[in-house]
Amino acid sequence: MRAGVFDSGVGGLTVVKSLLEHGLFDEIIYFGDTARVPYGPKDKNTIIRYSLEAQEFFKNFDVDILITACNSVSAHAIEELRSNASFPVIGVIEPGVLALQNRGLDPKSQILVIGTQATIGSGKYQKLLREHGYNNILAKATPLFVPIVEEEIFEGPVLEATLQHYFDSLHPDAIILGCTHFPLIQDAIADYFNNEAVLIHSGEAIVEHLQKELGIKARKKTPSLKLFASENPEKLKKIAAHWLRDAFKTNEL
Amino acid sequence: MRAGVFDSGVGGLTVVKSLLEHGLFDEIIYFGDTARVPYGPKDKNTIIRYSLEAQEFFKNFDVDILITACNSVSAHAIEELRSNASFPVIGVIEPGVLALQNRGLDPKSQILVIGTQATIGSGKYQKLLREHGYNNILAKATPLFVPIVEEEIFEGPVLEATLQHYFDSLHPDAIILGCTHFPLIQDAIADYFNNEAVLIHSGEAIVEHLQKELGIKARKKTPSLKLFASENPEKLKKIAAHWLRDAFKTNEL
Repeated sequence: MRAGVFDSGVGGLTVVKSLLEHGLFDEIIYFGDTARVPYGPKDKNTIIRYSLEAQEFFKNFDVDILITACNSVSAHAIEELRSNASFPVIGVIEPGVLALQNRGLDPKSQILVIGTQATIGSGKYQKLLREHGYNNILAKATPLFVPIVEEEIFEGPVLEATLQHYFDSLHPDAIILGCTHFPLIQDAIADYFNNEAVLIHSGEAIVEHLQKELGIKARKKTPSLKLFASENPEKLKKIAAHWLRDAFKTNEL
Repeated sequence: MRAGVFDSGVGGLTVVKSLLEHGLFDEIIYFGDTARVPYGPKDKNTIIRYSLEAQEFFKNFDVDILITACNSVSAHAIEELRSNASFPVIGVIEPGVLALQNRGLDPKSQILVIGTQATIGSGKYQKLLREHGYNNILAKATPLFVPIVEEEIFEGPVLEATLQHYFDSLHPDAIILGCTHFPLIQDAIADYFNNEAVLIHSGEAIVEHLQKELGIKARKKTPSLKLFASENPEKLKKIAAHWLRDAFKTNEL
């Protein structure tokens, strides 16, 4: 089974990491639109246009399923992608909300959703959370975390000041990490809230969804991975070699 | 005289502000490539490709001169733009270095150049500074300042932590603000260095260059301004109305 993973840039590798760790496919084709990253501050119409262009790329590979790792794409372009594809297209928003529910959180729990301006502005997480009975929702665009992660800052004063900037006086019971970059600072986020909040990670959520809802089973062999980018594929491969080294435990990249 | 001003996004409005304040043209046509912003982390080849596409847009307006407000474009695509244009194309790098020289700084002065990865990585400022006799150069990519300004953070703990992150233990005599966003935090940068460093602002530098080198004279009337963006032109106009309100002193936008 061949899966396509689409992301606006390199961040979607956090989702690939989860897929690799659980061995969910035989082959993964990753495309990052690095020439036009980030999508997060962009318009719905632009995100739809770029997403449909990326989907054409995946049609070359005869994929069995397309996973949109990018929350901004999942929030704005999922219907358009679905209506233009002959294969299932899975976003990260529904899996994220289902993963939250599977943690058995009380409906009165306060849920903090963080993401890009596009993701939060779409209201998609908020709507789906309400449909699942969660009404105590805080939704907050936290766009600075993206360039901070891209600067490879995972701890220290800049990150601490930014956590304080966004989270001052919040005490959520659970946090949906609604952007592919955020799992890379999940330890700092968890620490900020004294490890008292449940964290939902899109990669883990999508694995749960693929296993439970679509019945996709783990392979014995680590999936093969092909990486593509709209600019600087070498940089994508370098980052993948670094981020995914534990998932592969070899030098396969 | 009609000038085109090209930028990767909204930041180039800081250059427009200087042009308006000095009344240097009759008409200014601004184009921000907001659908593909930022250029700063992108490849030379991508920046050239996007810049040449933007230049085609300006050909519709019969401009007499094109100013590339974006330092990343000025660093990587200026030759390509020049060889594809029948009008002069002016970047911000040469004016910046000339403005520094006009401040009468001793050749032994330590010059700190800050900008995006693309601008600093190109080595263009460094090369030109050395050609003008400045050999004590520190060049530093400070990409986080861009999203911080876009979050409208102009002071406070996040900015202070980031200033400390980039500038800890530096004591430059002059700083070239090699990105259109940086003039918006120039007060914080000046404060960080106890107002002891000379700051060079691309907008002011280009005005100096246009007046001294090209003999362009001030008009009595504030230039008219037309704003275009590759996505969300309304947002560009809103930001312009805010940033340029002093330059216009009216509600002309």
